Amino acid sequence: MKKFEEKTIHTEQIYKGKVISLQVDDVTLPNGKTSKRELVKHPGAVAIIPITKEGKLVFVEQYRKALERSTLEIPAGKLEPGESPEWTAERELEEETGYKTAKLEPITSFSTSPGFADEIVHMFLARDLEVVDEKADGDEDEFVELVELTLDEAFRMEREGRIFDAKTAYSLLYVQAKGLV
Amino acid sequence: MKKFEEKTIHTEQIYKGKVISLQVDDVTLPNGKTSKRELVKHPGAVAIIPITKEGKLVFVEQYRKALERSTLEIPAGKLEPGESPEWTAERELEEETGYKTAKLEPITSFSTSPGFADEIVHMFLARDLEVVDEKADGDEDEFVELVELTLDEAFRMEREGRIFDAKTAYSLLYVQAKGLV
Repeated sequence: MKKFEEKTIHTEQIYKGKVISLQVDDVTLPNGKTSKRELVKHPGAVAIIPITKEGKLVFVEQYRKALERSTLEIPAGKLEPGESPEWTAERELEEETGYKTAKLEPITSFSTSPGFADEIVHMFLARDLEVVDEKADGDEDEFVELVELTLDEAFRMEREGRIFDAKTAYSLLYVQAKGLV
Repeated sequence: MKKFEEKTIHTEQIYKGKVISLQVDDVTLPNGKTSKRELVKHPGAVAIIPITKEGKLVFVEQYRKALERSTLEIPAGKLEPGESPEWTAERELEEETGYKTAKLEPITSFSTSPGFADEIVHMFLARDLEVVDEKADGDEDEFVELVELTLDEAFRMEREGRIFDAKTAYSLLYVQAKGLV
């Protein structure tokens, strides 16, 4: 897993932010030459595929400043310091949807943008959803709205461009492949 | 598509690099409060699912500095100025794999990390591959090795963690769902 390894000669820290940091590494390439790599550091995130007892998928509509538009996505959120992915997934599911589950199943983990970022998203399946009695508040700068859809409706939203991100596109194919609804 | 819109009050340019840029925007939230958004700007990219006449999928093994490891991914690359996604896809397919096709089919486009980056990946399917007579050279700082796998072998590589990125994970489910091999 270290094939064609690029060794770091020097790291320049450019920015350290609330969510991400940016550094530029000088590296030695396999042919002995050097190059620069611009690298975004991210704490990692979770995403949850919530399926209601009625067989609907739960999405959140939210504004994505990076895209300057709103999207329909499966619930997701970044890891807070000291949190395991499981804890984050339980917390984000409850904060964003008002649902909880006793049955949180890890599916897979993947890198979202391996060319420039170290973000890894840990994917979970949440079935047998129960409504939380007293919904916890989420981040104070986060505004989301719940949307429950059948798988067919969700694929239509994807064709129409309202579902527009990799983890959610992956989720729809996963639910279909596993026959989960 | 502008629900919960966050209006920009001020943009601070932090870094302008070879591949990505970083800016921090002050925004007005729907409740009138303000917040900061750390935003990575990326030119966009393409990814290609190449299927050989023998029904194998073509991957490239490469070192990903952001992850400090090598991965098996479908061929991909960023858009150069003035290039259409189709051109980029043809170019990257040829540079990275030595294959070309007369049949490049757009599948979908998605945002990879909507929480902090504007990167969009345009996905293509490449069937009826032909070996290029004289392979064009790729980026001089890019070292890749070709790996051809059946879909079953690819799913095994994913379970073993050698396939580890969202666009490639999506590709495997897509090929399976559409019965392409």
